[in-house]
Amino acid sequence: MRDVAVIGVGMNKWGELWEKSLRDIFVEAALLAMDDASVDHIDSLYVGSMTPGLFIGQEHLGSLLADYLGQCPIPAARVESACASGGLAVRMGWMDVALGVSDIVLVGGVEKMLDVDGGAATYALATAADQEWECYNGATFPGLYAMIANAYQAKHNIPFDKFRKQLAQVAVKNHANGLLNPNAQFQSKVTPEQVMTSTMVADPLRLLDCSPITDGAAAAILCPLEMARAKFKKHSPVVIAASGAATDTLSLAHREDIAYLKATEVAAQHAYKMANMKPADIDFAEVHDCFTIAEICVIEALGFFEVGKGGDATLEGATALDGAKPINSSGGLKSKGHPVGATGVAQVVEVAHQLRGEAGKRQLQKARIGLTQNMGGSGGSTVVHIFKAV
Amino acid sequence: MRDVAVIGVGMNKWGELWEKSLRDIFVEAALLAMDDASVDHIDSLYVGSMTPGLFIGQEHLGSLLADYLGQCPIPAARVESACASGGLAVRMGWMDVALGVSDIVLVGGVEKMLDVDGGAATYALATAADQEWECYNGATFPGLYAMIANAYQAKHNIPFDKFRKQLAQVAVKNHANGLLNPNAQFQSKVTPEQVMTSTMVADPLRLLDCSPITDGAAAAILCPLEMARAKFKKHSPVVIAASGAATDTLSLAHREDIAYLKATEVAAQHAYKMANMKPADIDFAEVHDCFTIAEICVIEALGFFEVGKGGDATLEGATALDGAKPINSSGGLKSKGHPVGATGVAQVVEVAHQLRGEAGKRQLQKARIGLTQNMGGSGGSTVVHIFKAV
Repeated sequence: MRDVAVIGVGMNKWGELWEKSLRDIFVEAALLAMDDASVDHIDSLYVGSMTPGLFIGQEHLGSLLADYLGQCPIPAARVESACASGGLAVRMGWMDVALGVSDIVLVGGVEKMLDVDGGAATYALATAADQEWECYNGATFPGLYAMIANAYQAKHNIPFDKFRKQLAQVAVKNHANGLLNPNAQFQSKVTPEQVMTSTMVADPLRLLDCSPITDGAAAAILCPLEMARAKFKKHSPVVIAASGAATDTLSLAHREDIAYLKATEVAAQHAYKMANMKPADIDFAEVHDCFTIAEICVIEALGFFEVGKGGDATLEGATALDGAKPINSSGGLKSKGHPVGATGVAQVVEVAHQLRGEAGKRQLQKARIGLTQNMGGSGGSTVVHIFKAV
Repeated sequence: MRDVAVIGVGMNKWGELWEKSLRDIFVEAALLAMDDASVDHIDSLYVGSMTPGLFIGQEHLGSLLADYLGQCPIPAARVESACASGGLAVRMGWMDVALGVSDIVLVGGVEKMLDVDGGAATYALATAADQEWECYNGATFPGLYAMIANAYQAKHNIPFDKFRKQLAQVAVKNHANGLLNPNAQFQSKVTPEQVMTSTMVADPLRLLDCSPITDGAAAAILCPLEMARAKFKKHSPVVIAASGAATDTLSLAHREDIAYLKATEVAAQHAYKMANMKPADIDFAEVHDCFTIAEICVIEALGFFEVGKGGDATLEGATALDGAKPINSSGGLKSKGHPVGATGVAQVVEVAHQLRGEAGKRQLQKARIGLTQNMGGSGGSTVVHIFKAV
């Protein structure tokens, strides 16, 4: 198994990109990554996208995007694991390079979500949940995560006022970070009061507890570490120290405990084992805060904080830029935006920038080992990667 | 890189499976494969499916199907390359086992196409073509392949009557083979006259030149060859000798020559090189006959017959069960059916049965090395595998 390095990353400014098509925004991000890596040819392409069929009536993205990048006839694949599609693309690209099938692989993610109206977008996103057990009964994602939030609060016996503040602090922190990220969809500060008085979406989750609908893409270039050292010396290489993935039932109804993200724990344990590390070794992480409650559950399942204490840690500032375990320095899904298929790859963009000391105003002081956690649906799938500056 | 073996295969009877859901038909095929391999646990799952979001409103199939197989929390991924999604799943599973990430991997494919009406199915399938250059202008797949057929006839200067007979013979042969396959959707003989007088769909392609709309699934179990020899002795092992993949532009308008399937040639050349073989070494093949013209173009691009001579070879019987190079002994997409995501995996099912001498009435006399060719869209992507009895 060859060691695999990230030698270039790229993403564009995310948001409501009315003037661009899916192929435009993907090519833009991919060319930024190729330029960052100083490569003009790739051997293979993996693209994560959740449901371009429902969003823009276009499947078969692997070939389409290989063509629009000028790279046909290279092998190209689209991979999908709902909102974890981007993380899955990274995992497939890592396998490909580690095995030696390809030397230079582009892993990307893209979603064009704003070409349909809000109802159609909600329907498209709900295809990540179990149609037969959840959606046909009226459930959508804010409702599912609201159930997780209520179960979490009850299980850990947290007074509602305190719990409400914990949730709000996730949004406040991530918006504060996103304010420092020029690619973020929302570069705007929010206060706890603004979060706690924003429109109710699904009790207890309010508008500012939810990540937005976003158009965007992200890309990274992978190659063998040995080749990175010999040929691509522009940046100090970032190594993929581990890749872990796991699944859980799609439907919440079939889980033992809906207040705990089991697939995240299992994927992380695989990754820690492969990297020969423990949670304490991780300096910082980009995690899947599709809703504020998700970040709290995720940082517990990753082993960063005791179960039931993720909210306290957040309130105490442990996950802030200057905290002991900075989480979502990029602004996270909450502020940076959440073009679902692109999110897992954008996490790698942020980690690479941090590990290379190029994160500008949001640069972390201690950034030698970073982790990404990308999640599908209400936790039905999770992909975890660990990256190391070498 | 570890050698990878196929130790079990399974598929159900394909057709209009009104009484079963997607998860039912996938689990049925997967359990048949697991039973065939004598395994009750898998380490990882790859499922090819083209557009379950448009067909049944359900994405995130990796986790869903891992759960319904009782295998959570294993890693699971859905992969998509339009009608080549099944072949792509096989390729991803091969990489996973070859690299040593997993030992026992289930690769499957599934599509539930009949839960929507014909118009919606045509729309869903057209998402494999280029929306902006083709579909928005009214093109659907029969029309695109009709253009390929007309260009092919003109380029090779074949008299229309003869060309019409060549196309018909593909359907006649594949239905004759499918008659011997109990899992085929259409176990019915057709005559050249029936094909040539069936309803016109897109000139020159008639109804019996087209593969049908089908519900179905297929699965195969992969493991390292060494493990197959030590632990799974029920069948003589079938080895994956090579995997090749390639892309072309989605839109026909952007190809140099629409009468030639370049991606199939490139994918096949990769595979021949990896297996250290040439076209003459292949005893038989399962290829992507979504339309009769497709089979003729494919057997040329694979190097089995001279370019422009695939139709003659077919008329002369070279591709029949008792011919020099039997093609689509299973009945092909034409007669066996074409649940798009499942097709590439079902090709592996047929090749394994042939290599193990278990193909019943359609058993080929010479079956030591078999090839599968699975194609997306109008040839925008192709995956080729070569299998060897050892």
